[in-house]
Amino acid sequence: MQYRTDLAVESLASVRGREGIEEQRRGKYFRITEIHIQNDRAGKPLGKTKGRYITLEGQPLSRFSDDYEGMAEELAAELRTLLPEDGCILTAGLGNADITPDALGPRVIGKVLATRHLQQELGEEEDFLRSLRPVAALAGGVLGQTGIESAELLLAVAKQIKPAAVIAVDALACSSLERLGTTIQISDTGIAPGSGVANHRTALNATTFGIPVIALGVPTVIGMRTLAEDLTGRRPLPTGQDMMVTPRDVDRLISQAAHLIACAINLALHPQMNYADVAGL
Amino acid sequence: MQYRTDLAVESLASVRGREGIEEQRRGKYFRITEIHIQNDRAGKPLGKTKGRYITLEGQPLSRFSDDYEGMAEELAAELRTLLPEDGCILTAGLGNADITPDALGPRVIGKVLATRHLQQELGEEEDFLRSLRPVAALAGGVLGQTGIESAELLLAVAKQIKPAAVIAVDALACSSLERLGTTIQISDTGIAPGSGVANHRTALNATTFGIPVIALGVPTVIGMRTLAEDLTGRRPLPTGQDMMVTPRDVDRLISQAAHLIACAINLALHPQMNYADVAGL
Amino acid sequence: MQYRTDLAVESLASVRGREGIEEQRRGKYFRITEIHIQNDRAGKPLGKTKGRYITLEGQPLSRFSDDYEGMAEELAAELRTLLPEDGCILTAGLGNADITPDALGPRVIGKVLATRHLQQELGEEEDFLRSLRPVAALAGGVLGQTGIESAELLLAVAKQIKPAAVIAVDALACSSLERLGTTIQISDTGIAPGSGVANHRTALNATTFGIPVIALGVPTVIGMRTLAEDLTGRRPLPTGQDMMVTPRDVDRLISQAAHLIACAINLALHPQMNYADVAGL
Amino acid sequence: MQYRTDLAVESLASVRGREGIEEQRRGKYFRITEIHIQNDRAGKPLGKTKGRYITLEGQPLSRFSDDYEGMAEELAAELRTLLPEDGCILTAGLGNADITPDALGPRVIGKVLATRHLQQELGEEEDFLRSLRPVAALAGGVLGQTGIESAELLLAVAKQIKPAAVIAVDALACSSLERLGTTIQISDTGIAPGSGVANHRTALNATTFGIPVIALGVPTVIGMRTLAEDLTGRRPLPTGQDMMVTPRDVDRLISQAAHLIACAINLALHPQMNYADVAGL
Repeated sequence: MQYRTDLAVESLASVRGREGIEEQRRGKYFRITEIHIQNDRAGKPLGKTKGRYITLEGQPLSRFSDDYEGMAEELAAELRTLLPEDGCILTAGLGNADITPDALGPRVIGKVLATRHLQQELGEEEDFLRSLRPVAALAGGVLGQTGIESAELLLAVAKQIKPAAVIAVDALACSSLERLGTTIQISDTGIAPGSGVANHRTALNATTFGIPVIALGVPTVIGMRTLAEDLTGRRPLPTGQDMMVTPRDVDRLISQAAHLIACAINLALHPQMNYADVAGL
Repeated sequence: MQYRTDLAVESLASVRGREGIEEQRRGKYFRITEIHIQNDRAGKPLGKTKGRYITLEGQPLSRFSDDYEGMAEELAAELRTLLPEDGCILTAGLGNADITPDALGPRVIGKVLATRHLQQELGEEEDFLRSLRPVAALAGGVLGQTGIESAELLLAVAKQIKPAAVIAVDALACSSLERLGTTIQISDTGIAPGSGVANHRTALNATTFGIPVIALGVPTVIGMRTLAEDLTGRRPLPTGQDMMVTPRDVDRLISQAAHLIACAINLALHPQMNYADVAGL
Repeated sequence: MQYRTDLAVESLASVRGREGIEEQRRGKYFRITEIHIQNDRAGKPLGKTKGRYITLEGQPLSRFSDDYEGMAEELAAELRTLLPEDGCILTAGLGNADITPDALGPRVIGKVLATRHLQQELGEEEDFLRSLRPVAALAGGVLGQTGIESAELLLAVAKQIKPAAVIAVDALACSSLERLGTTIQISDTGIAPGSGVANHRTALNATTFGIPVIALGVPTVIGMRTLAEDLTGRRPLPTGQDMMVTPRDVDRLISQAAHLIACAINLALHPQMNYADVAGL
Repeated sequence: MQYRTDLAVESLASVRGREGIEEQRRGKYFRITEIHIQNDRAGKPLGKTKGRYITLEGQPLSRFSDDYEGMAEELAAELRTLLPEDGCILTAGLGNADITPDALGPRVIGKVLATRHLQQELGEEEDFLRSLRPVAALAGGVLGQTGIESAELLLAVAKQIKPAAVIAVDALACSSLERLGTTIQISDTGIAPGSGVANHRTALNATTFGIPVIALGVPTVIGMRTLAEDLTGRRPLPTGQDMMVTPRDVDRLISQAAHLIACAINLALHPQMNYADVAGL
């Protein structure tokens, strides 16, 4: 039995160096690890499909930092490598805005600049706004709130507005304390069933959508039993229920992580903007 | 030039009694007026399509009342007359959750019981929950937040989940001070372009959706110039900009109106529930 | 070394039955334990002053329950045994409203009926409101927000309004998982330095205030290392920092616990009101 | 009968140029008017005490502006002229955080840097933080929430912490549409009974407090009947109730005005900080 984690960097620890699994390291503001699973066969023992998993590890996102600008730009640059060059992008916030550790997605989307409607609306004098890449931004809520599975809702919207790609932001679970609230994961494999704090049931990926689906998330919860084993080296007795826990300062974690990620998305989508432009949105 | 209002009871005042326009009165907790425009020809001079416009007038919704239960049941009964007997209902909250006078729709939807997913999910022992009519609930945000017109978003969702009807809740503008925050309007004509506090651009009605679209709203704003003429009997000078204003206690108006309307929607959709069941949702 | 807990029922486990420590059990909706430390000598080994510690244990407060009315009345009855019969009560919400697990106090105070000003204000016709016991309600914020220690702020207010007693509500830390979010503690010993989620520095008790100070709290956080030892039976390595964690559904825990406690305080202070009166406040 | 306004620039319009009333104009980012009532005799016909009333008029505070930095610094400079050079400052947010147009005071205080506790707490290595002027920050709520009049609460706190001056921030009423949401008023005369959106009952001024009390406010509401007369030139019939109204975009007005004022207060109190330091607080 393996503890649950949504982080590839944790679940792939045991297979590093195997054939078909390539790893690169880089980064200035973050320690960046890119794991490339080159084919589905290599990923199979791990329950992962082929694709690129980029992990950015740094200081606790709930702490104040002087490096926000550099961090946002570094994250934007990583994100840009996974995006198509042109076309409308549908940004989607998964998760429940009423449950703080699960609210990362909706909070990010609230700060993403929606521009898809500007080209029809604006006159020619507003050249700058009209020059922006078309972006739609949706945080529709989770299944228990809407009666509609997140992937089903986004699929309906994608059929209607025909974006070139989706960026889906979600809060994640991890299995190692040191990554809780310190790590950002980007992947071109989308979001698998059973992942995320709110446990999505349907795949949200290139296979179901027919376009690239970039997933972006931060671990905000950890299983209590995982945590106990991580700290003591001993597995808890298999009694009682597991429970997801979150740091006491989760409000600040969500608030600051959402701001950083939204800045990075806006920078990645609009190269004509700089950090000062997007930081106040 | 006529001042803007979303209330049929105001815009139709001048044509009452004409051929093709029928009026009925009833109600215990509210003074209820139903105006039935029997064909498009009769509605044409007013810019209204044929359909039923039900207005419920009462005490200020921002005040405390001992009659919530009776009010919710009376509103539910009116709403039920416009709904198909069976099939999934898509409830939609229009408006911007971040602008208090425009937040009625999202606030109502937050309290509507989403049940569409329960039939697949629940085991046979949970007979009560499985017996509930399937309901989906969505408050996706306004064009400036999402880059997607509300009607376009809902049309995409309706194509996907194929509801039997839509209930769309929105904050409205009125032209008479006495109706501000005291009136609820229900109509089977949907939502016209240019209506609502946030000014929808695309029709959300039976023609575009192919199923009944029930609109439900409360006036929460009034044009400043309308208000001035209403109070003084003199038309303001045609200088300066008009501005929508709202009562100082708009937070309480939205909070209490949202609670009442959500209770009524839940009662209308689930006759097996009573007020005590829905009041705590 | 003992793990930190604010619950007497946990810290006193080892000395039960000793001279000067009396224990009683009762309760219908909760399992109620009252520990009475009869003199300071008996409490000394535990760092506790003499006084009564009443613990109410039940189902998770974040879950829905059909028993709210009975729970609120049982809690009110316990609280009433510690209150003076007459005179103004100053209710105080400790903690930081911006940090969810620490927001219990401010959230309770937002629902406590403030009545101290009604006697001067109201005319004779409003007999019911004028008959209510005078109550003041304050949630001033924590030291980092205000620059003023909570006890210092409340002492200043108490000097001004001269209440007969203080009820101070705070979020607590516990050391046993089964009590996290399931337990309510009431005590007539006030709030000690170092206790509470936000770590108060100055005593808030009968000695410093010269009047009874009733403390009421719910454990909403647990030390991560305590949790690990509780689950595995092995003490974590003494490396790294400890961190307070909270359940993923802390928003609902705080919301429902605040509602229950506020109902109980309003019932305890105003015997002329019943549950239906206070539940909607 | 005169319509209600809290703005000296409106109530003093008729007496400009009289003996004992001096007027100065200045400003770059705002049009600044300082009215100096030199003695109580000159102020008597207006119900105003002697003192300085500084009005800063500009663009709508709810709109986006590129000039925030200049505006904050100009406001800080005006505020600094009324403050004592040394000593602890008690900043106070009047008004009700739950009623948007009345929430200006609490929202400002949430962003004021509280420093009074830092000198005792911090070690010598944290020279910068220890060098900051001691500031306390309190937003205790209004009479209906607390049972304690705002002035009474602040007086109790001032006795305890003995500040050199008070800065009290409040939302105001105005009688001219063009000043609604566009004007900031600073005064060294404190806050008079009957003023502010929530209608304070007790004076909060140098006479009652024995130290300078600086009032700072923005008009966020206007009387409906005042508005009607302002627009039509005709007085409304003296029937029905008056009602305070507020612009539809009051959420953004409060949010942006609170940010600007908090920046200005932080800059005025800590000359060693610049706009970039305070803008992110």
